[in-house]
Amino acid sequence: MRGVVLYAPGDVRVEEVADPRITAPTDAIIRLSASCVCGSDLWPFRGVDSVEQPMPMGHEYVGIVEEVGSEVKNVKPGQFVVGSFVASDGTCEICRSGYPSSCVHRVFMNEVGTQSERALIPYADGTLVATPGMPDAELIPSLLAASDVLGTGWFGAVAAQAGPGKTVAVVGDGAVGLLAVLAAKQLGAERVIAMSRHERRQKLAREFGATDIVTERGDDGVAQVKELTGGMGAHSVVEAVGTQESMQQAIRAARAGGHVGFVGVTHDVALSGEELFFAQVSLLGGPAPVRRFLPELIELIWDRKIDPGKVFDLTLPLEQAAEAYRAMDERRAVKALLRV
Amino acid sequence: MRGVVLYAPGDVRVEEVADPRITAPTDAIIRLSASCVCGSDLWPFRGVDSVEQPMPMGHEYVGIVEEVGSEVKNVKPGQFVVGSFVASDGTCEICRSGYPSSCVHRVFMNEVGTQSERALIPYADGTLVATPGMPDAELIPSLLAASDVLGTGWFGAVAAQAGPGKTVAVVGDGAVGLLAVLAAKQLGAERVIAMSRHERRQKLAREFGATDIVTERGDDGVAQVKELTGGMGAHSVVEAVGTQESMQQAIRAARAGGHVGFVGVTHDVALSGEELFFAQVSLLGGPAPVRRFLPELIELIWDRKIDPGKVFDLTLPLEQAAEAYRAMDERRAVKALLRV
Repeated sequence: MRGVVLYAPGDVRVEEVADPRITAPTDAIIRLSASCVCGSDLWPFRGVDSVEQPMPMGHEYVGIVEEVGSEVKNVKPGQFVVGSFVASDGTCEICRSGYPSSCVHRVFMNEVGTQSERALIPYADGTLVATPGMPDAELIPSLLAASDVLGTGWFGAVAAQAGPGKTVAVVGDGAVGLLAVLAAKQLGAERVIAMSRHERRQKLAREFGATDIVTERGDDGVAQVKELTGGMGAHSVVEAVGTQESMQQAIRAARAGGHVGFVGVTHDVALSGEELFFAQVSLLGGPAPVRRFLPELIELIWDRKIDPGKVFDLTLPLEQAAEAYRAMDERRAVKALLRV
Repeated sequence: MRGVVLYAPGDVRVEEVADPRITAPTDAIIRLSASCVCGSDLWPFRGVDSVEQPMPMGHEYVGIVEEVGSEVKNVKPGQFVVGSFVASDGTCEICRSGYPSSCVHRVFMNEVGTQSERALIPYADGTLVATPGMPDAELIPSLLAASDVLGTGWFGAVAAQAGPGKTVAVVGDGAVGLLAVLAAKQLGAERVIAMSRHERRQKLAREFGATDIVTERGDDGVAQVKELTGGMGAHSVVEAVGTQESMQQAIRAARAGGHVGFVGVTHDVALSGEELFFAQVSLLGGPAPVRRFLPELIELIWDRKIDPGKVFDLTLPLEQAAEAYRAMDERRAVKALLRV
């Protein structure tokens, strides 16, 4: 089958790769309906994460089940499914406590690769959720978003305790940040402050529910958030970038007693214990437990209550994956969908 | 009046200091029944925090109200009161959200000093809580503990979400750590693991409700906690030291989806964003919002349901404050009470 492989920073190739094969009775194989490129795929593409050997790429996916192992009970061939970017057994204590992305048997799907025609899904029962039926083509981008960016933005908002009466600030205007805006709105937040300098992204943020836009960054951005919140800072802040600057901006933009949900994959971030101590904000982040939210997210999408697929502003065939990476790297695209 | 002043690291003196005077209508003056030395007083005593000029010392206090400003309504002369180590207005948005220690008008009482015969209490209405009557002498150490160490240990346990069905680990066997053990037990924790190498402190931890003792530190200690928790780590960890090692130990001892409450005043701590991200633990710390808990803590003490005063294993007259500091610095005493 065809699949995307990263050979070195900047060197994305689409080539023949081995077909997936079921080896564990809990595996499933799906035929992808669509895949996409994630902001986190850009870390190795840019050489920030090292590339030691050719890497299969991609961890977001939706598609139709083709084959299941002998122990798989919750999904069956022919069903359309959405799965998390982290495979999880669904039965361990950590999964049952709501953190499948830290499952004791977790498999990060980027180790498997889903920018391909088919993909092996470990722990299919704990990982995949079937949709109520075969989706209309127009729903596929939104269902694909649920696999990671929507689920991740959603977790950011949940970790930041977005909810009624709350002012939520979102640091980062990539797809995850934009969908954190959508999540905050859906969770009932009173005000949603999107921090963005880019006009197109601001527009999407407004469509998703942002009530205020702050264009400044760093401590200037923090000062703006404070000005909008009576000097206090936001109740909830979602961090969706992963750098030292963005983490500091998020912590400083939150009021004492507030919550920061950080979902940007952190790179070279060192947090001052003293600052955290005196800031007195709650901090929770990490790989989003998307599987926890999937049933709810699928329902919202199926019922056309949310349209997270709007974050895809570039659609290319799988064969043109390299161009998709470049467009996102150069910020010409928010997020690129790959037609399989 | 007599009061404790730190002139330089190691140089504690008891001398004549100015009597407190009411300057704001929200002030009160109390005559102390007892004061004490806090682990955090040892930071400047040891020279870890710099001593630029002679500093009045102490921030824990109980006593009898002598005089109140014209706007003080909740307490009156003659009442016995307990107050937080942070004065707070009790009315701002941050206070009302449960974080009086981050009040927009907060005053850290160590800037005022309470190791003295009398003390000025700013924002008396928002800071002080009167006891139901004049306490028996035997209750005074426990009421004094509520002012900081008990309230701080309690916050650590609350921030770590200690509760029924939970396994709680406590890093640090100082007075705060020991009282975090008591708090975890009171909050209904199923298991409480005290991390301590000192036999006397282990004994007190057991009296306060510890079910397990771990004597190892650092990653060896973490491995022990994991072994006691089926490889998962504790649901809740209280950090009550404030060093790089203790913070790492706390974060690593918590399971994914768990909570760390950190109440040791952090010194030269830098937390790896990457480690926090993948640990997926919630982190909340800072100066404890003791005032939030005072009514409940006073009731538990008044009804003899808890006896946190046991942490005082040395009692000296105020005039011998220097010896009290030395005994705690050399770990000959867990906590020293000063008779006023």
